[in-house]
Amino acid sequence: MGLAIGSVLVFACAALFAQAPAPVRRPPAQVRSPEIGPDRRVTFRLRAPAAKEVSVSGEFMRGGKSLQKDEDGLWTVVVGPLEPEIYNYNFTVDGVRTIDPGNPEVKTGSTASTIGSVLEVRGETPAFYEVHPVPHGEIHTLWYDSKSLKYTRRLTVYTPPGYDPAARTRYPVLYLFHGANADETAWTRLGHVNLILDNLLAAGKIKPFLVVMPFGYPAPPGTGASGAGASGAGGGFSQIATLFGRDLTEDVIPLVESRYRAYTDRDHRAIAGLSMGGLESLEIGLNHIDLFSFVGGFSAAVSPAAFPQTFASLTANPQEANQKLHLLWFGCGTDDSLFAASENFDKFLTSAKVKHVFKQSEGAHTWMVWRRYLNEFAPLIF
Amino acid sequence: MGLAIGSVLVFACAALFAQAPAPVRRPPAQVRSPEIGPDRRVTFRLRAPAAKEVSVSGEFMRGGKSLQKDEDGLWTVVVGPLEPEIYNYNFTVDGVRTIDPGNPEVKTGSTASTIGSVLEVRGETPAFYEVHPVPHGEIHTLWYDSKSLKYTRRLTVYTPPGYDPAARTRYPVLYLFHGANADETAWTRLGHVNLILDNLLAAGKIKPFLVVMPFGYPAPPGTGASGAGASGAGGGFSQIATLFGRDLTEDVIPLVESRYRAYTDRDHRAIAGLSMGGLESLEIGLNHIDLFSFVGGFSAAVSPAAFPQTFASLTANPQEANQKLHLLWFGCGTDDSLFAASENFDKFLTSAKVKHVFKQSEGAHTWMVWRRYLNEFAPLIF
Repeated sequence: MGLAIGSVLVFACAALFAQAPAPVRRPPAQVRSPEIGPDRRVTFRLRAPAAKEVSVSGEFMRGGKSLQKDEDGLWTVVVGPLEPEIYNYNFTVDGVRTIDPGNPEVKTGSTASTIGSVLEVRGETPAFYEVHPVPHGEIHTLWYDSKSLKYTRRLTVYTPPGYDPAARTRYPVLYLFHGANADETAWTRLGHVNLILDNLLAAGKIKPFLVVMPFGYPAPPGTGASGAGASGAGGGFSQIATLFGRDLTEDVIPLVESRYRAYTDRDHRAIAGLSMGGLESLEIGLNHIDLFSFVGGFSAAVSPAAFPQTFASLTANPQEANQKLHLLWFGCGTDDSLFAASENFDKFLTSAKVKHVFKQSEGAHTWMVWRRYLNEFAPLIF
Repeated sequence: MGLAIGSVLVFACAALFAQAPAPVRRPPAQVRSPEIGPDRRVTFRLRAPAAKEVSVSGEFMRGGKSLQKDEDGLWTVVVGPLEPEIYNYNFTVDGVRTIDPGNPEVKTGSTASTIGSVLEVRGETPAFYEVHPVPHGEIHTLWYDSKSLKYTRRLTVYTPPGYDPAARTRYPVLYLFHGANADETAWTRLGHVNLILDNLLAAGKIKPFLVVMPFGYPAPPGTGASGAGASGAGGGFSQIATLFGRDLTEDVIPLVESRYRAYTDRDHRAIAGLSMGGLESLEIGLNHIDLFSFVGGFSAAVSPAAFPQTFASLTANPQEANQKLHLLWFGCGTDDSLFAASENFDKFLTSAKVKHVFKQSEGAHTWMVWRRYLNEFAPLIF
């Protein structure tokens, strides 16, 4: 964008009503940020003549980097070249963390701590999470009255390309959960789950299945409870998982299986999630192997001290678990502060003789890792 | 939220792995902003010890208001009491316009100029655009290959409660367009179209119908073309409407009528839009009375100088227009800089003897006005 849209719009409107031509004023030059060069170097800019210090921090580097100010009060820095990816970043202006006001792409969540700008660096060919020229599924947003939680909640559902609600075909279902401070839109907006599955399906790597993404907190969004409960301290996540698990099993699954052409048996149900949602999927899934036969955890926020109690029913009968679970898969990046928790879970399950796959990958606690995990996990189920 | 979530999460993770209890550090107090009092006074806060000047501006008042700094570098201001509504607002910190970093609700669009924080002030009973205890429809997001525009585009579709894709019932369709710098998610995210129609349906004020919301720019999002073309200067909006009109009539309508249980005749098609989308709905609708029988424009960005040429086919045969058009409805707020354009359109149509309704209301160029217009327009169609 080479123009200040707001100003131009005002000029345009003024021009519409003027009988004589409106006087020509030059709108101030719009700051272009981020600007991605052909060599994938990225220039960040911010106009802030009064600021003393401006820096950028983001998932494309460790720590922050200072911007330099010119005589017009325009701050600039160049980073990269960056690998093709989708990165989150923020500016800090004199100590105030903010988005890049030049960038329309903003990452939001259920708490303010997650707000950031989004930088998508494209490669020469579209990545596995981008739009390819293949058939596309749909994303549905449903409002439902949760009897267990006693309020109206939102639910996101992915239906694969060719899904025909009037046909006899039935579909398996993956129940997929977001992390702390996020909501039921995170896996579609940030995780690109629909595009990843569209692409896998077109490549013949998966069979078509539904994905159901509920809001992972039991308290209504914006009530503060979701934020306070997000700490995970004092078993907070486990309390969340218990309440959320009731909504899932008593409200969401019956709703999905009545409204969609879904199979209704455990062989056709998978459950997975990331971070807080990984704790939820592992806790709920492994305590309901009567309901689910594929269980996944991505950078799961599990608590080693609680393993013996949380997974008592699983480890009490490892033979039954190994027979019923077609897959127990969890992964974590070695740069993730939660890596030790997954390592611990691997040891715990090995010692209990419960079959599982522990994926150790590069990366930290980011969507880059979770998109790749989904791309790897999806072909292993159903 | 009384806690700094990010910090607490780090503490929580540290605590998970420590053999001994982790040392207790007090996280810095989270800034609570906006805080809505029981008297509907609203307190805005920002921690910015290094800033020289902080102000807030928003749809709840004219101009801006300065925040005052205390000895800890916390800036504060109280406004109101405010009427129950959904307002957009921004902070300006030493000349840099930004969102409220304490507020997770962020309004985004197709250009950076629209980014703002969202303040929802609730009344004693839920407003017409809030969730009521009534049956709810669904929102669908579709990806489709536009043959006329030659790329994959997104489409938002609202299906009313009880919509059954396998039933014989057919539904009328409202084609509904967003304004400049927005996208195909604006009418659901900011306009609450689904909740407004759910509530009208439950009150018996409308019959169930589908709403189809395409992306209103012909160029792909993020290519800059949508932003540059948003100016409306030099007939920009009209060029947009022409290209967009091809996508609508050649791609979107056939897609909708094949994938949904939609009626396929002009008596069951309505077209409406706001601002740039109002220009689109009036230009496309009134030049295609063979396709549409209900036409609406909300704060439409129409250009009086172009009326004789743009609407030549309509005014050439007012008798046919008056016979075919079941409704031509447009509204504008008297505080809107586009009000004169709608006044002009009213005069133009009166002089051409084309029947119409011109709604003059309070308000400016805001979503407050457009939600109310939808609530008034919907019961008049089908």
